Amino acid sequence: MINMRRNLKAAILGSTGLVGIEYVRMLVNHPYIKVSYLAGKGSVGKPYGEVVRWQTIGQVPKEIADMEVKPTDPKLMDDVDIVFSPLPQGAAGPVEEEFAKQGFPVISNSPDHRFDPDVPLLIPEINPHTISLIDEQRKRRDWKGFIVTTPLCTAQGAAIPLAPIYANFRLDSVFITTIQSLSGAGYPGIPSLDVVDNVLPLGDAYDNKTIKEITRLLKETNRNIPESYPEDLSLAATTHRVATIHGHYEVIYATFKEDVNVEKVRESLDTFAGEPQRLKLPTAPDRPIIVTNQDARPQVYFDRWAGNPPGMSVVVGRLAQVSRRAIRFVSVIHNTVRGAAGGGILAAELLVEKGYIDKR
Amino acid sequence: MINMRRNLKAAILGSTGLVGIEYVRMLVNHPYIKVSYLAGKGSVGKPYGEVVRWQTIGQVPKEIADMEVKPTDPKLMDDVDIVFSPLPQGAAGPVEEEFAKQGFPVISNSPDHRFDPDVPLLIPEINPHTISLIDEQRKRRDWKGFIVTTPLCTAQGAAIPLAPIYANFRLDSVFITTIQSLSGAGYPGIPSLDVVDNVLPLGDAYDNKTIKEITRLLKETNRNIPESYPEDLSLAATTHRVATIHGHYEVIYATFKEDVNVEKVRESLDTFAGEPQRLKLPTAPDRPIIVTNQDARPQVYFDRWAGNPPGMSVVVGRLAQVSRRAIRFVSVIHNTVRGAAGGGILAAELLVEKGYIDKR
Amino acid sequence: MINMRRNLKAAILGSTGLVGIEYVRMLVNHPYIKVSYLAGKGSVGKPYGEVVRWQTIGQVPKEIADMEVKPTDPKLMDDVDIVFSPLPQGAAGPVEEEFAKQGFPVISNSPDHRFDPDVPLLIPEINPHTISLIDEQRKRRDWKGFIVTTPLCTAQGAAIPLAPIYANFRLDSVFITTIQSLSGAGYPGIPSLDVVDNVLPLGDAYDNKTIKEITRLLKETNRNIPESYPEDLSLAATTHRVATIHGHYEVIYATFKEDVNVEKVRESLDTFAGEPQRLKLPTAPDRPIIVTNQDARPQVYFDRWAGNPPGMSVVVGRLAQVSRRAIRFVSVIHNTVRGAAGGGILAAELLVEKGYIDKR
Amino acid sequence: MINMRRNLKAAILGSTGLVGIEYVRMLVNHPYIKVSYLAGKGSVGKPYGEVVRWQTIGQVPKEIADMEVKPTDPKLMDDVDIVFSPLPQGAAGPVEEEFAKQGFPVISNSPDHRFDPDVPLLIPEINPHTISLIDEQRKRRDWKGFIVTTPLCTAQGAAIPLAPIYANFRLDSVFITTIQSLSGAGYPGIPSLDVVDNVLPLGDAYDNKTIKEITRLLKETNRNIPESYPEDLSLAATTHRVATIHGHYEVIYATFKEDVNVEKVRESLDTFAGEPQRLKLPTAPDRPIIVTNQDARPQVYFDRWAGNPPGMSVVVGRLAQVSRRAIRFVSVIHNTVRGAAGGGILAAELLVEKGYIDKR
Ligand SMILES: NC(=O)c1ccc[n+]([C@@H]2O[C@H](COP(=O)([O-])OP(=O)(O)OC[C@H]3O[C@@H](n4cnc5c(N)ncnc54)[C@H](OP(=O)(O)O)[C@@H]3O)[C@@H](O)[C@H]2O)c1
Ligand SMILES: NC(=O)c1ccc[n+]([C@@H]2O[C@H](COP(=O)([O-])OP(=O)(O)OC[C@H]3O[C@@H](n4cnc5c(N)ncnc54)[C@H](OP(=O)(O)O)[C@@H]3O)[C@@H](O)[C@H]2O)c1
Ligand SMILES: NC(=O)c1ccc[n+]([C@@H]2O[C@H](COP(=O)([O-])OP(=O)(O)OC[C@H]3O[C@@H](n4cnc5c(N)ncnc54)[C@H](OP(=O)(O)O)[C@@H]3O)[C@@H](O)[C@H]2O)c1
Ligand SMILES: NC(=O)c1ccc[n+]([C@@H]2O[C@H](COP(=O)([O-])OP(=O)(O)OC[C@H]3O[C@@H](n4cnc5c(N)ncnc54)[C@H](OP(=O)(O)O)[C@@H]3O)[C@@H](O)[C@H]2O)c1
Repeated sequence: MINMRRNLKAAILGSTGLVGIEYVRMLVNHPYIKVSYLAGKGSVGKPYGEVVRWQTIGQVPKEIADMEVKPTDPKLMDDVDIVFSPLPQGAAGPVEEEFAKQGFPVISNSPDHRFDPDVPLLIPEINPHTISLIDEQRKRRDWKGFIVTTPLCTAQGAAIPLAPIYANFRLDSVFITTIQSLSGAGYPGIPSLDVVDNVLPLGDAYDNKTIKEITRLLKETNRNIPESYPEDLSLAATTHRVATIHGHYEVIYATFKEDVNVEKVRESLDTFAGEPQRLKLPTAPDRPIIVTNQDARPQVYFDRWAGNPPGMSVVVGRLAQVSRRAIRFVSVIHNTVRGAAGGGILAAELLVEKGYIDKR
Repeated sequence: MINMRRNLKAAILGSTGLVGIEYVRMLVNHPYIKVSYLAGKGSVGKPYGEVVRWQTIGQVPKEIADMEVKPTDPKLMDDVDIVFSPLPQGAAGPVEEEFAKQGFPVISNSPDHRFDPDVPLLIPEINPHTISLIDEQRKRRDWKGFIVTTPLCTAQGAAIPLAPIYANFRLDSVFITTIQSLSGAGYPGIPSLDVVDNVLPLGDAYDNKTIKEITRLLKETNRNIPESYPEDLSLAATTHRVATIHGHYEVIYATFKEDVNVEKVRESLDTFAGEPQRLKLPTAPDRPIIVTNQDARPQVYFDRWAGNPPGMSVVVGRLAQVSRRAIRFVSVIHNTVRGAAGGGILAAELLVEKGYIDKR
Repeated sequence: MINMRRNLKAAILGSTGLVGIEYVRMLVNHPYIKVSYLAGKGSVGKPYGEVVRWQTIGQVPKEIADMEVKPTDPKLMDDVDIVFSPLPQGAAGPVEEEFAKQGFPVISNSPDHRFDPDVPLLIPEINPHTISLIDEQRKRRDWKGFIVTTPLCTAQGAAIPLAPIYANFRLDSVFITTIQSLSGAGYPGIPSLDVVDNVLPLGDAYDNKTIKEITRLLKETNRNIPESYPEDLSLAATTHRVATIHGHYEVIYATFKEDVNVEKVRESLDTFAGEPQRLKLPTAPDRPIIVTNQDARPQVYFDRWAGNPPGMSVVVGRLAQVSRRAIRFVSVIHNTVRGAAGGGILAAELLVEKGYIDKR
Repeated sequence: MINMRRNLKAAILGSTGLVGIEYVRMLVNHPYIKVSYLAGKGSVGKPYGEVVRWQTIGQVPKEIADMEVKPTDPKLMDDVDIVFSPLPQGAAGPVEEEFAKQGFPVISNSPDHRFDPDVPLLIPEINPHTISLIDEQRKRRDWKGFIVTTPLCTAQGAAIPLAPIYANFRLDSVFITTIQSLSGAGYPGIPSLDVVDNVLPLGDAYDNKTIKEITRLLKETNRNIPESYPEDLSLAATTHRVATIHGHYEVIYATFKEDVNVEKVRESLDTFAGEPQRLKLPTAPDRPIIVTNQDARPQVYFDRWAGNPPGMSVVVGRLAQVSRRAIRFVSVIHNTVRGAAGGGILAAELLVEKGYIDKR
């Protein structure tokens, strides 16, 4: 199907940001989505290569470095077909609505619309069916465009491995501890004095929003067992940042309502795949979850870029039977790739495939 | 009672090490234990101040800086009354046995004898009664001295808050995730490349030894409820190091066999005290556990030196009801103070009080 | 003389800041200056202990923790005799002028008035005579109070060792490279992503202001040789921050107009002392410069707290003859103690001794 | 010429090390040098992918991951044409001699033979003519193979920009301060406790070996002015490591015997090129020196991978006129690429071009 795509033009909002640069990096080699508009705020008017803080692998792509950063204004984007929106919380919401009103499909990484009931919170391997909310969204809001969101990176690092587990086993409780990277908080982001010779707890607010998102995602995950989402499913998270640049590390203990066999859990993780893999979308990793059996892996430095494209696979390891009804595993997710830009591009590809995005 | 103590002379083995320097620092102001012999291996023959890596607060005490580091040889320690032994694993065991044979009381921080059934694994607030094992030890091994060990710092950071919880509530499972400091591994210790832009998992071996020690400590904790240690009490740990210098941070989720009220748990932690507090031992903190209610506390940098003497209190925070039968809390322990040297000195003070240590 | 001092009451502006906390810490044990007013901006109305980020040694002093942070308003400070002002650049200037107008002696660590010709830029061991500018200042500005400033921490780390060298030898060029700590930039200060796996250059602006301040300080240093400040004395600095918490590290190459003997330079550093030492001011270190001969010293972690009071001595090492007319040395200065609060308190003590500060 | 090369087979000694992995990474895409033998010591017998610590960009190449690590034994390498030797100091020397005796061309990154007078110390852009020493080497030592060394990474970071400056201007003194990365010291390398909240000085030994190597390199640099290497050319270095992973940062002040114009210096750096560029060797960057004019650049994180291939260019910035006879600049070099493996591969390509390496 891929060779039939006509080139779609993408605008990247917040193009100089930590997520914005991953969109730029990943789209320069995309088979059918081209970067055609780099939007910003403070950087407007300057060549991208001069203003960007290129905090990722490789160098600023030559073809992008000379492009001028432009205003975040839908009226200047007539020939843009897709809008990727990694804008900061608070600023994002109204901007995204404006673009949707003006007829643009908006793939957002921001928190602002994640809990609108008519907006999908999409991890394409997990809840692709929720894109049908778009029809409801367009009707309710009477706009031609739409907004689709991708979840909080931290929530994805737990939800992606939990999805096949939840799908196949009767989960009872999940106890999460995270050790997250600095890039997850943007730039300037976390003050250096908070993370030198220290571990920075993010507190109840961040713990709770992580849980809130995982909850919605699990509720939208199809199960292979005859039990719907149990209201007594207990989820807890204790979140932190340390001085790593990219990559969120999560330790997850899960208990079950009945005895569970960790080898069967391993198999469900190992074989996990979804629509993106079936459709062979360009940004879909062959294995959204890569299970490792090495004793001291995954590690953030060595495993965050796993998969193909790099950073699109979540690496799960330390899988162990804790007791008859409890297991433990660790996951590492690339927060700005799978957790943001890569997830956004994959979402766009699914929406193209399903007819929601086309040349405008 | 304190003013009746005659000055006891202490030898510090491994005196230049990360634990050794805390013994030096804490004993220079001790009411009745004096540093009289600084032992080493590679540092032998040189002035302490020249060879020591003083990785702790303050500066090398003037009176100590000019003392020569001497061989680790009991025959040179005739006037020594107490031997503190923070020696590395493997080297420690035989050396400690030799000293005990030669009639010395040995307070050890090393792992080598921690699981000898006739050797106490002592946290003075938790299992002080186990010092009676010394009588058995002396008889079995036919020596006049003895060995008492202090537990793994990581195990203490969990066992100290778990003790009052285990004592008062029917614990079912404990799920621990640690974020430990570098000093816990000695010097040269952890290679820098393992902890820059990375989180280093310690692997199954370290996880398991942490659990093994917590298990013994809980089994030796007196309960206020009519249940002995349940063999199905499930303990799990996932341990890590990051680039912090001192201070182990632990996230602990605990589940119970029946509904539990987190406020009652808070109270049990808040009021926790033991023999050392009752005896007003010099190195006993008024509150071995300090409970904080701040949202983003405890933090390693700000809480590791809590208590009086500084570093002797474990700070517990983020105490929360996760579900009817589950709670979560976080603890920060100073690994070389409460977790090693401070715990060692407190153990010695208890043994002095109970008549096991006196001038030789 | 000390026992004749009546208790002077001090207000600390910016009391919760990185410099503010050092004022608090150092003044709780001061023989005659008492902390009587803690001023702030965002922290106003809350107990100090609750709002302060205590990023220094020890814990928040008990007597201070419950004091309420109050507005930065001279009208509320009737019984205050001295005002210490570590306020941020831009905010500081007008506030300090208002206090001086209202009759307060203001010891400032901020940059705002450092280059007013009638305001001393004081390092008490180096240019104590410049306090006479106060008379001129009071006359010109017609105020009863006054402003005295302390220099940029980075400039002090170079100027303190350069002063005796400049005083005794015919300096020609000075080439400085700094590796500074994060606390020097306040909080939130330096974004973490700038200093993880990176060295952050501060750029021409910071290099130049460092040179500008060293220049003024040297010009105000008395020489023991018959040469006044040579206009062709070339000073250059290349400044950086890395992920250290406290302590600025500076590598200094100095060339001379004639052959120089490094041993004579060593002697001039070793014997360096000034008015504060002669007057035995409480906060004066016996040796403002401590010269070390160890091969891999000074080091930030181990040497920043040198001196008595701790942090008041600059440690100089790696002193070497580079060529007949060039030497090299390294200095470590505690940026918030000698470089700010300690230097401020020492300045106040000198001003008390010289009659410029008394009960108001 | 490239298309006439027959595939040459390379053995990589120390293949799992920090330099070894860069050889692997760079050679998998090489037009005519193939990785055919991965040698090691402790890793022998295991699949490369299982034992290697892949501390560089990308992932272990699939074709390499399953290759078994083999003994460091010339007798097992019959079909190997080139031996790359990034072996540790002390171990390297005898091994390299053995290989040369057995007829292998050895490109070494180790220090052991760098100061043998008949062994080239090669930076291909700077002193390519010194490869003629090979003829002398073979005669003197009566072996068919040979050893060519590449210089200390730190020395290269200074020598590469200094070469065109020395070639075109009458250098008088050079004052260097380095802020080097951890990978330069191998693994386990630098203890983490030395570089957390600290700057680690490397001491006189490292300073001196840096100077010694720069001296030899400059002496072998052709000058465009009628002055040979002045014996009074003064070079000084003060070297350090901080917690960066790759990339050495060097601040260099240079003085001259006469007035110098920094713009002319900029031009000499900008236009610098050598034999590799003329021969268009595959691993030769178009610009061995990339001059940047941005105020806060170069930075280790953003500039270490500069050039094509990435990491082969040294980025020079902060070029400034300090006084009439002095300038300052900063350089960033990728220590394991240009500073080791990349420099080694480039050396091999030059030697192939010049007929010293061919199928054996
Ligand atoms: N970082 C992660 O790991 C991650 C993961 C998942 C989701 N997210 C979400 O993605 C979003 C962006 O995060 P980030 O880390 O990329 O942030 P960032 O590095 O701080 O970048 C924010 C970008 O947005 C632009 N911007 C800021 N305010 C704007 C406004 N009012 N109008 C238009 N553009 C504006 C800025 O442009 P100028 O530079 O031109 O001013 C900047 O390039 C956030 O909502 C975040 O929660 C982040
Ligand atoms: N670090 C912690 O947080 C912590 C907490 C609880 C328990 N512990 C335990 O305490 C012990 C010491 O840990 P550490 O962190 O202090 O280690 P360290 O910093 O590596 O110091 C080890 C010391 O032991 C000496 N030493 C080494 N081998 C010896 C031998 N064969 N005979 C005599 N002396 C020898 C060394 O002396 P020279 O320098 O003279 O060679 C050195 O001073 C270990 O068993 C550790 O598990 C450590
Ligand atoms: N840090 C160093 O090493 C160092 C060395 C020498 C000189 N200095 C100078 O000392 C000054 C303070 O530096 P710092 O590192 O302590 O900064 P900081 O940690 O950022 O603290 C600034 C303090 O000033 C208060 N503040 C901010 N704006 C104010 C305003 N408009 N009015 C009244 N109070 C205000 C804040 O109070 P609230 O928290 O209540 O809002 C805060 O406590 C700066 O001028 C700096 O250049 C610093
Ligand atoms: N790192 C740099 O930036 C850099 C730059 C320029 C030059 N160099 C030089 O390059 C060399 C290697 O440095 P590195 O950083 O790659 O070191 P490293 O990471 O410590 O790796 C050393 C490698 O050598 C192997 N090895 C060790 N001893 C050996 C022996 N006796 N015989 C055979 N193989 C042995 C090891 O193999 P096993 O794992 O199988 O035991 C290991 O893979 C050093 O001489 C260094 O000075 C390094």
